[in-house]
Amino acid sequence: MKVTVCRKEHFNAAHRLHNPEWSDQKNQLVFGKCNNANYHGHNYDLVVKVTGEPDEQTGYVLDMKILSEIIEKNVLDRFDHKNLNLDTKEFKNLIPTAENIVIVIWKILREKIDKQLEIKVILYETERNFVEYPSN
Amino acid sequence: MKVTVCRKEHFNAAHRLHNPEWSDQKNQLVFGKCNNANYHGHNYDLVVKVTGEPDEQTGYVLDMKILSEIIEKNVLDRFDHKNLNLDTKEFKNLIPTAENIVIVIWKILREKIDKQLEIKVILYETERNFVEYPSN
Amino acid sequence: MKVTVCRKEHFNAAHRLHNPEWSDQKNQLVFGKCNNANYHGHNYDLVVKVTGEPDEQTGYVLDMKILSEIIEKNVLDRFDHKNLNLDTKEFKNLIPTAENIVIVIWKILREKIDKQLEIKVILYETERNFVEYPSN
Amino acid sequence: MKVTVCRKEHFNAAHRLHNPEWSDQKNQLVFGKCNNANYHGHNYDLVVKVTGEPDEQTGYVLDMKILSEIIEKNVLDRFDHKNLNLDTKEFKNLIPTAENIVIVIWKILREKIDKQLEIKVILYETERNFVEYPSN
Amino acid sequence: MKVTVCRKEHFNAAHRLHNPEWSDQKNQLVFGKCNNANYHGHNYDLVVKVTGEPDEQTGYVLDMKILSEIIEKNVLDRFDHKNLNLDTKEFKNLIPTAENIVIVIWKILREKIDKQLEIKVILYETERNFVEYPSN
Amino acid sequence: MKVTVCRKEHFNAAHRLHNPEWSDQKNQLVFGKCNNANYHGHNYDLVVKVTGEPDEQTGYVLDMKILSEIIEKNVLDRFDHKNLNLDTKEFKNLIPTAENIVIVIWKILREKIDKQLEIKVILYETERNFVEYPSN
Repeated sequence: MKVTVCRKEHFNAAHRLHNPEWSDQKNQLVFGKCNNANYHGHNYDLVVKVTGEPDEQTGYVLDMKILSEIIEKNVLDRFDHKNLNLDTKEFKNLIPTAENIVIVIWKILREKIDKQLEIKVILYETERNFVEYPSN
Repeated sequence: MKVTVCRKEHFNAAHRLHNPEWSDQKNQLVFGKCNNANYHGHNYDLVVKVTGEPDEQTGYVLDMKILSEIIEKNVLDRFDHKNLNLDTKEFKNLIPTAENIVIVIWKILREKIDKQLEIKVILYETERNFVEYPSN
Repeated sequence: MKVTVCRKEHFNAAHRLHNPEWSDQKNQLVFGKCNNANYHGHNYDLVVKVTGEPDEQTGYVLDMKILSEIIEKNVLDRFDHKNLNLDTKEFKNLIPTAENIVIVIWKILREKIDKQLEIKVILYETERNFVEYPSN
Repeated sequence: MKVTVCRKEHFNAAHRLHNPEWSDQKNQLVFGKCNNANYHGHNYDLVVKVTGEPDEQTGYVLDMKILSEIIEKNVLDRFDHKNLNLDTKEFKNLIPTAENIVIVIWKILREKIDKQLEIKVILYETERNFVEYPSN
Repeated sequence: MKVTVCRKEHFNAAHRLHNPEWSDQKNQLVFGKCNNANYHGHNYDLVVKVTGEPDEQTGYVLDMKILSEIIEKNVLDRFDHKNLNLDTKEFKNLIPTAENIVIVIWKILREKIDKQLEIKVILYETERNFVEYPSN
Repeated sequence: MKVTVCRKEHFNAAHRLHNPEWSDQKNQLVFGKCNNANYHGHNYDLVVKVTGEPDEQTGYVLDMKILSEIIEKNVLDRFDHKNLNLDTKEFKNLIPTAENIVIVIWKILREKIDKQLEIKVILYETERNFVEYPSN
C-alpha cells in the first residue's frame, strides 16, 4: 500500500554550459546561447517525490513540512540565488545541464532521506524543458 | 497498445489532522497548524488515470465524459463542500491526510470502473503538496 | 513614472456562508453547498499590488521581500489554517464571502503600507472564482 | 544512470469524432458534442519524454533544442492550424480521439529519434483531459 | 466600496480567419496559417469580470454560481464545440478574430446582467494570446 | 470600441542587484541574496498589452504574430540568455530590478509600436513577483 508524496520547491540560479576541454567555437556550436560567457539564469522548479507506506499513527509517508525543510536546508540553501558554475563545488567540474543538476540533487537528497523510502526528482529548467531522475 | 487517459476534477473541503489516541500536546507537535481545532480547508485537485486498450470502434479507452461522471457521482458528491472529519463516514475514524484521502478515493473508484482497466489517482492538496496512489 | 509591484501569497482556510438573521431554509436556498453546517475550505491565493515611484537608490518601489513579510505577518498569520467564522474576529459578524474577505485584507494592509503607495488586492477562492478590490 | 528529458510544445487544430460505419444517430449518441458536423477545435499541449544516459562530453541525453526541432518539423508542421480529419492523411480513416492522436505522434517520433532512447508522449486535449502513450 | 467578481469558463471551437472581399492570395498573406480553408481550433478560456457594491445581506456582488449559469446559458451553449464561421449567426459576416469574439461576448452578456454592474471580458485564444474588452 | 490585445513571451537572464555607490555591507543589507557577486538568474515572463480600435478589414488591433516578432526582435534578442549587468548597455548603469527592467522594456517597445496604440508591460520575475508599467 505504497503512496508517493510530492513536494514542489523552487530556486533561482545563474549558469553557463561550457566544456573546458573544447574550443570556444565548438562550445558555441554545441551549446549555442547557453554558452554565453557571462552566464544566464533560470527559475528552477523542483518536485521531490518520496514513496513508502503511510504510518498508521500519523497517516503520513513523510510529513511534507519535514520534506520541505530537508529540501530547503540541503538543496535551496546551496543553490538558490547562486551562480552554479562559480559558487558551488558540485558544478566546478561538471557542466550544469538540467540532466546533471537533477542527478546531483537526487544524490544529495538520497543521503538525507530514510533508505526505505524511494526518491525521484523532477527539475523544471523552464516550463517547457524539464528532466526526471531516475527514469522509472 | 495500452493508452492512459486522464481526467482532472476538483473539490473543496475542510479537514483537521488529529489522532484521538494522542494528547492535545502531541497532536499539536506532530500536526502543527493542520491540527487547528476548528478545521481549515483546501481546494483539492484530483487527477484520475485509467489505462487500457482503445476500443476499435470508438477510439476511446474510456469516454472522458463517462469518467468525469463516475468521479462526480462517486467522489465529488461525497466530498465536495464537506467537512471530511464530520460529514463523511470514510474519515470518521481515519485521519484525512492526503495519503489517506488518495487511497480512499482509489478504492471507491476501483469498485466503479471495469477491472480490466488499471487506475491511478493523483491528489493535489495544494499546488505544492500532492500524492499519488498507487506508486508505480 | 509609477510602477506597480505585485506579490502572490496563499493561505488555506475553512469557512461557511451563513446569515444568522435568516432561516436555515433561506440560507440553504441562497448559499447552497457553501452553507454546509460543518464548513468547507479553500486554498486562497492572494495577489497584493502596490503602486508608486521606484526609489532612485534601490530601483525598488517596495522591496518584495518586505512586502511578503508584511503580508505574512498581518494576513497569513491571522487567517492561514484557520476557520474564518470561528477563529477570527474579522468574520465573527461578517459573512466570509470572497468579496468581504478581499475588503478586510485590503483594510488590514492599508494600515501597514506607506500611504503614498496605492494598494489593490486580488483574492482567488478557486482558480475560477476570484475578486478584486478596489475595482479600478 | 538514465535520465528522462521532457519538452513541451503545442499546436492548434480542428477535429470531429465520427465513425462512418455508424448511423448519424449512433454517432451523436456516442460522441455527443464532439460529433458536431462542422468540427470544433483545441489547443493541444504536447509533452515528449526521452529517456537515456547523459553524454559525458555534453551532459545532455538529447539537446532539448534538437528535440524541439524534431517535434516541430515532424509533428507541428503536420498538424498545427490544420483540420485533422480533412487535412491530414493520418486521420483520413482513423477517428482523431486523443488516444489515437497520441499513438500516431508516438509512431512518428519513434522513426525520428535514436532507437536506444525510450520515448513517451503526453497529449493534453484540454487542461482537464489528457492521455499518455505508452502507459508505463 | 465597489468590488470586482470574476468567473473563468472555457469552450472549444473551430474557426477560420478569412475576409470574403479579398483574394485568396491576400487572405493567405494577412492571416497566414489562420486562413486554413478547413478551419483549425482552440480551447478558449473566458474570464468575465463584474463590478458593483456587495449586497449587505449576502455579501455578494453577484453570486458566482449565477454568473456561471448566465455565461453557460448565453455564451457556452452558443459557441462550445461549434464551428464559429459555419454554426453561429454572430460570425456569419464577421471575422472571428479574438478581438471580434470578445466584443460579441461582451454585448451578449451586457444584455443579461443588471445595468448597474459594469462588465469586462477577457478571452484567451491560447495561453499566450489574449484580449480584453473594454480596455480600461 | 477599444480592445486590448496581449502577447506573452519569455526570456532567461542572469542579473545582480548592486548599487556601486554603496559599501558591500550596505548592498548586502539592502539586496540580500539578490546581491550575490557572481549573479543569479530568472525565467522572465513578459506580457505586452496593446490597446486600440480593431481594423474593420482584418478584425485585428495588431496582428499578434507581428506583435510577437516586434518583441522578439527588440526585447528577446537583446536580453535572452544574457547577463543583464554585463552584456547589455541598458543596465550598465541602472540596477536591473524588475521595476527598472519593465520601464526599459516599455520604452524600447514604445519606439517600435504605432503611437496611436497604448502600451502596457507586465514582467514576471518569478510566478510570485511581478511588476506592471505603467500603473493604470
